[in-house]
Amino acid sequence: MSSIDLSTVRTFLLGLQERITHAIAEVDGQPFMTDHWQKEPGETLQGNGITKILEQGRVFERAGCGFSHVRGPRLPPSATQHRPELAGAAFEAMGVSLVFHPRNPYVPTVHMNVRMLAATPVGENCEPVCWFGGGMDLTPFYGFDEDAVHFHQVCKDSLKPFGDDKYPRFKQWCDEYFYLKHRQEQRGIGGVFFDDFQELGLAQSFAMMQSVGDSFLQAYLPIVERRKDSLFGERERDFQLYRRGRYVEFNLVWDRGTHFGLQSGGRTESILMSMPPLASWSYQRPNEAGSPEERLYKEFLVRRDWV
Amino acid sequence: MSSIDLSTVRTFLLGLQERITHAIAEVDGQPFMTDHWQKEPGETLQGNGITKILEQGRVFERAGCGFSHVRGPRLPPSATQHRPELAGAAFEAMGVSLVFHPRNPYVPTVHMNVRMLAATPVGENCEPVCWFGGGMDLTPFYGFDEDAVHFHQVCKDSLKPFGDDKYPRFKQWCDEYFYLKHRQEQRGIGGVFFDDFQELGLAQSFAMMQSVGDSFLQAYLPIVERRKDSLFGERERDFQLYRRGRYVEFNLVWDRGTHFGLQSGGRTESILMSMPPLASWSYQRPNEAGSPEERLYKEFLVRRDWV
Repeated sequence: MSSIDLSTVRTFLLGLQERITHAIAEVDGQPFMTDHWQKEPGETLQGNGITKILEQGRVFERAGCGFSHVRGPRLPPSATQHRPELAGAAFEAMGVSLVFHPRNPYVPTVHMNVRMLAATPVGENCEPVCWFGGGMDLTPFYGFDEDAVHFHQVCKDSLKPFGDDKYPRFKQWCDEYFYLKHRQEQRGIGGVFFDDFQELGLAQSFAMMQSVGDSFLQAYLPIVERRKDSLFGERERDFQLYRRGRYVEFNLVWDRGTHFGLQSGGRTESILMSMPPLASWSYQRPNEAGSPEERLYKEFLVRRDWV
Repeated sequence: MSSIDLSTVRTFLLGLQERITHAIAEVDGQPFMTDHWQKEPGETLQGNGITKILEQGRVFERAGCGFSHVRGPRLPPSATQHRPELAGAAFEAMGVSLVFHPRNPYVPTVHMNVRMLAATPVGENCEPVCWFGGGMDLTPFYGFDEDAVHFHQVCKDSLKPFGDDKYPRFKQWCDEYFYLKHRQEQRGIGGVFFDDFQELGLAQSFAMMQSVGDSFLQAYLPIVERRKDSLFGERERDFQLYRRGRYVEFNLVWDRGTHFGLQSGGRTESILMSMPPLASWSYQRPNEAGSPEERLYKEFLVRRDWV
C-alpha cells in the first residue's frame, strides 16, 4: 500500500462498529438504536456518521459507539502546531469511538477509539500525509487484579506483531493521557494510547490500528461476563455514581477531542455519548480504611505494570 | 476611599457568606458544614478560605458557598491580555461564590458570585489597581414568569443607585456569558454579570458589588418559599436530573473560573462545589409538544427582557 485507500479504512471502521455493537447487544439482550447523520451544506465541516446507542439495557445503562467521517478545508491551528508544513492543509478524518457504562458496579467502564487523519499540504505536487491513532482504557469501580492483567495482556498481544517497543510506549502514553491533574488521580487502570502514528509506513500503521480495534471485544467481554451478575447494594451503586463524576470531569475538562469538538461545532449529542447515564458529586467523600473503595484508589488508580 | 482597604472588603465578604448560609440553613433546617483551608507553604498561590456546604438537606440537595482570599506573585497571561501594563504584576484576589441545587424541581438552581482583584504593576511608585466583579443568575427547570420577573427586578433595583445603564449592560453581559454554545441554549433565565469593574471609582465600585451581594437573598428566597413544597413526581425529577447535566457541561466546558481553576492548581473540592449532587444524560431526549418541559426551552432558555 503505497498510498492509502480511504474507502478501505472506512469499510474497516464500519465493520468494526457493526461487530462490536452486535456483540454488546447480544450480551445485553437489547439492540442499539442507530442514527445516521450528515453535516448540513454550508457548515465548515462536511461529512457523515452513524451513531449507535443502547440506553437503559439490562447489562449496560448507557453504551454509545459512533462512527464519523468528516472533511474540512483547513486543519485547526491546534492540530498543526508541531507540523508547520501542514498549516492550512485540507484534511479528512474518520474513526470509531465508544464508551460503555455498565449497570453493575463490578463491571468496569470502558473506552476505545481508532482513528485516521489524512491531510494534503498546500503547495505543488504535494502527497497527502496520513496518521493513525487509537487505544483503549479500562475504568473499574472495584479493582480486580485478574481483570487488569487480562485487559493489558490483550492490549499487549494486539501490538506484539508490530514490535516489542509498542506496548510499553503506548501503555505509558495512556497513563499520561488519562490522568486527572486536578485530582492527582489516574482515570482508571489504563491500557494503550497512541496518536500521530505513521512510523511503520501506511500499510503496517493501518494494520496496527486494525489489530487494536479488533482486539477490543476480547479485552473487554470476558470481564463483563465474569462480573455482570455480581451481587451489589446501595453502597456499591453510590460509589459507582460518585466515580462516574470523575469520568465526566476528565472528559469535559481534559479530553482534547471532547473539549475541542464541543468548542468547534462538532455534533454535540454524538460527542457526549461518552457521558454516563447518571453521576453524582459530594464534598470530600471519605473512604473507610481497608475498604475496597480505598483499595481502588491506592492499588488501581496509580501507574502500575500489569503485564 | 482613595485607596481600598482590603480588610474592609474581606470583612464584607465574610459577613455576606455568614448571612447567606445562615438564612439558607434556616429554610432548610440543616446547618452548613464549615471547612477552613489554607494553601500550603511553597504553593504558587498563597492564601486561605472558608468552604461552607450543606448536602442532602430537606430543601437543598447540595448547597455550597465559598469564601477565598489568595495572593500570587504574578497575574496569569490570560488575565493580562487586555492590560499589558499589568503583565507579571503581583495580585491579590478575594470573593464569595455560591451554587445552590434544590431538591424540588420547581425550585430553580441559583448561582451568585462577588469578587475583587487588586494588582500592583511592576515599576517605580506604582499604585495598586483594583477591579470588582460579580453577579447572579437563575436556572429554572420549570419556568414561571413571576419568578423570572421577580429575580430580574431585584437585580435591577440593586444596581439602580449606580446608574440606569448598569442593569441593561450587566443583564446582556450575563446572557452572553451563561450561554452553552455547543447546545445553542442559554444556561437559564440569566440575571446580571459584570467583571473588571472600576469605572465608578473604588468606593462606588465596591459599593455596587456590595449592593449586588446584599440583594441575593431577596432575589432568591421568595422563589424558594413559593416553590419548595410543590408536588412533583418521577417525570419532574427525571427532567431536573437531565437539565442538571447542562449545568455540569457549562461549568466544566465554558466557565472560565472553573476551567482555569482546575487547570492551574486551584482547590478542586471548593471549585467543584458547583457540581450538582446527581445529574443524568440521555441521547436526544425529546420534549412533548406543548409540555412544560418544551415551554422551558422555548420561553425561558432564550434571551428575553423580563423587566
